[in-house]
Amino acid sequence: MVAWTNEEGTRFAPSMMGSMAFAGLLPIGAVLESRDAQGRAFGDELERIGYRGEGLGERRFGAYFEAHIEQGPVLEETGHVIGVVTGGQGQRWYDLVLTGQAAHAGSTPMDRRRDALLGAAQVIEAVNRIGTGYPPGGVATVGHLSVSPDSRNVIPGEVSMSVEVRHPDDRKLLKMDAAVREAVAAVAEQGRLRARLDMVLDQPATPFDDICIGAVREAARAEDLPHLDMVSGAAHDAIAIARVAPAAMIFVPCAGGISHNETESALPQDLAAGCRVLLRAMLARAGVRG
Amino acid sequence: MVAWTNEEGTRFAPSMMGSMAFAGLLPIGAVLESRDAQGRAFGDELERIGYRGEGLGERRFGAYFEAHIEQGPVLEETGHVIGVVTGGQGQRWYDLVLTGQAAHAGSTPMDRRRDALLGAAQVIEAVNRIGTGYPPGGVATVGHLSVSPDSRNVIPGEVSMSVEVRHPDDRKLLKMDAAVREAVAAVAEQGRLRARLDMVLDQPATPFDDICIGAVREAARAEDLPHLDMVSGAAHDAIAIARVAPAAMIFVPCAGGISHNETESALPQDLAAGCRVLLRAMLARAGVRG
Repeated sequence: MVAWTNEEGTRFAPSMMGSMAFAGLLPIGAVLESRDAQGRAFGDELERIGYRGEGLGERRFGAYFEAHIEQGPVLEETGHVIGVVTGGQGQRWYDLVLTGQAAHAGSTPMDRRRDALLGAAQVIEAVNRIGTGYPPGGVATVGHLSVSPDSRNVIPGEVSMSVEVRHPDDRKLLKMDAAVREAVAAVAEQGRLRARLDMVLDQPATPFDDICIGAVREAARAEDLPHLDMVSGAAHDAIAIARVAPAAMIFVPCAGGISHNETESALPQDLAAGCRVLLRAMLARAGVRG
Repeated sequence: MVAWTNEEGTRFAPSMMGSMAFAGLLPIGAVLESRDAQGRAFGDELERIGYRGEGLGERRFGAYFEAHIEQGPVLEETGHVIGVVTGGQGQRWYDLVLTGQAAHAGSTPMDRRRDALLGAAQVIEAVNRIGTGYPPGGVATVGHLSVSPDSRNVIPGEVSMSVEVRHPDDRKLLKMDAAVREAVAAVAEQGRLRARLDMVLDQPATPFDDICIGAVREAARAEDLPHLDMVSGAAHDAIAIARVAPAAMIFVPCAGGISHNETESALPQDLAAGCRVLLRAMLARAGVRG
């Protein structure tokens, strides 16, 4: 059993730091030096709350199974109880800073403006077009945005924002990456803005282990639960661990596909079904008869 | 001589509270009850810092003159030293809240999203089109925007933002107001968002007093300074006072037309010229020979 550090990765990027460091995908030094918006280092904050350990130690997994709500609407809408996760989407995360010129909103003519928020709006629309332009499975999102000076009668001089793109096919993901860079450059030129685009997470699509996937599918069958093969749209520790151990995942439905939200909800019987499938898959992989 | 309270009006809306209350354009109770983003009341904060007075008292102005940097590029670019301000633009300020559905950025398909920030981006572009659509003198700006939950891997569920439109012609201002309301409704419907648009400032265009304007123009002539009649694009206390006393304003150039910014700058000789014109205009209006 393991609970990985900072799986969400929102205050300190990237996400899944614990499992990525364990899998050797991130140097431990880079993890400890990751800083939040206030410039505080992750390692110092672990120290402060008494959670900084001695190092990664030496552990090996014979196999790794992770159970999770789907965080999407597919299982619920198609009436399946178990998602047999065959792998994880590739994803790229970016930090973008657009810099224009703060000026008085009343006395600066429209044609003289270098409005960083107008540029950000054009990037947000472009990112949305990029997400919808790569079906099936492509998504693109701007989730964080902050404006400076953020005053109602001042034309915004600078905007900091996040951009992310995800796709199950790495070739498509690279096309989405190129489209994001192209859109940012075009917006910056048109709006006479300075643009700084830094990639903060680059995670290729990750296929899971066929034997582990088979064990999950077989367990769902044995439990007589309607199941569906699917790719994970979200990042999970299993996706990092899959680099160093045979891994797979089990999804169960969640209400409306909603997660990362107070209304996130899953039915007890679905969670129980997921646990039974997890147990059967583990026993099978361990060579124990269910 | 008078220094009015909260002319900028960014922490507590609306701007020019002091002069508007004095001119009877705002009930004093509404001013004291105005709340900041943290819900603190303006009156309580005045109390806290020891600046809350006994009331407005009884004062009358024979005439009111106000000198200011232009906060725009026109005087500098046209080589004039004095702007003879003939009146103030009309302006309307709004608070807009767009509410969609926060959800996981990786596992929520594009066609299932109710992304409040995407809607905000469409409003920002529409506001910019509205500003450019009413030349000369029309401007429209989104200066403040905040996202919730503001996390890079969560589709934004809610956005709060400011919108403002300004025009020297009230009929055009009303058209801009209607265009803003139309754009917000269209964006909300298209994005399946809830939209709440509240007008927090409604200020009609304000012509200044002909005799006071003439006094400023005459003073600029007497000082042999190149001068230009112009409308103020920014809000000023003089615009409120013009409702209860004969008023006018004097502008001087500022570097690049930039204000509300650390690089705001005006030449000492231009400021001195503005002061000489102010003195001459006051003396003339007071019936004293310069």
